[in-house]
Amino acid sequence: MSQSDIAAVNRRFEEAARKGDLDRLAALYTPDAMALPPDGQVVKGRDNIKQMWGAIVQQIGLKDVRLHTLDLQLAGETAYEVGEATLTVANGTAVVNFVVVWKKSDGQWRLHRDIWNAKGG
Amino acid sequence: MSQSDIAAVNRRFEEAARKGDLDRLAALYTPDAMALPPDGQVVKGRDNIKQMWGAIVQQIGLKDVRLHTLDLQLAGETAYEVGEATLTVANGTAVVNFVVVWKKSDGQWRLHRDIWNAKGG
Repeated sequence: MSQSDIAAVNRRFEEAARKGDLDRLAALYTPDAMALPPDGQVVKGRDNIKQMWGAIVQQIGLKDVRLHTLDLQLAGETAYEVGEATLTVANGTAVVNFVVVWKKSDGQWRLHRDIWNAKGG
Repeated sequence: MSQSDIAAVNRRFEEAARKGDLDRLAALYTPDAMALPPDGQVVKGRDNIKQMWGAIVQQIGLKDVRLHTLDLQLAGETAYEVGEATLTVANGTAVVNFVVVWKKSDGQWRLHRDIWNAKGG
């Protein structure tokens, strides 16, 4: 079941973020993943994505992430998800919308493209 | 050639945006498309996407859009693109990064998921 496999990876993402385990976080991405943080450059590959998350964790004081899938469509070995993430940060809570393109890589669903922006009223 | 078909739709997107033709812009999306503008809600369907673009055009004084594809991968009837858009707006130029999930719908490649955020240094 690809949908529940992807949901399980989202739970592992939350756990790695909560523990600040940047190695485990980066390992959830494909080797050739791209992440597009707001007000940043396109970040390519696990090493750079690990550094990106380290910088974000420090910058906003990230303590907890909850991912909520609004829509998930499968297309073979690829899937694309629209969702909302609630972040517990140093000075309160932030909510972002995201799109993740998932790809099956090494027998595991992994984040292949990851972009988000602030959710507004 | 799917890649050149998608590039052609991007040229039509630029043209519709330049002319402020919101009907043509919305028609480039699938009927069940979702757009995720920064500081907004998830916008679903062509009518709502048309309204969203109308609001954005008015809000920022959009005059011109140039889309630059950084990466485009095909997965059957779906494709996903990472790119950069340069917007000519009332008070200068804005650059955003975007991810578009494309889907073949009615024999045409159309924008199915569209999310962007401000590009930073």
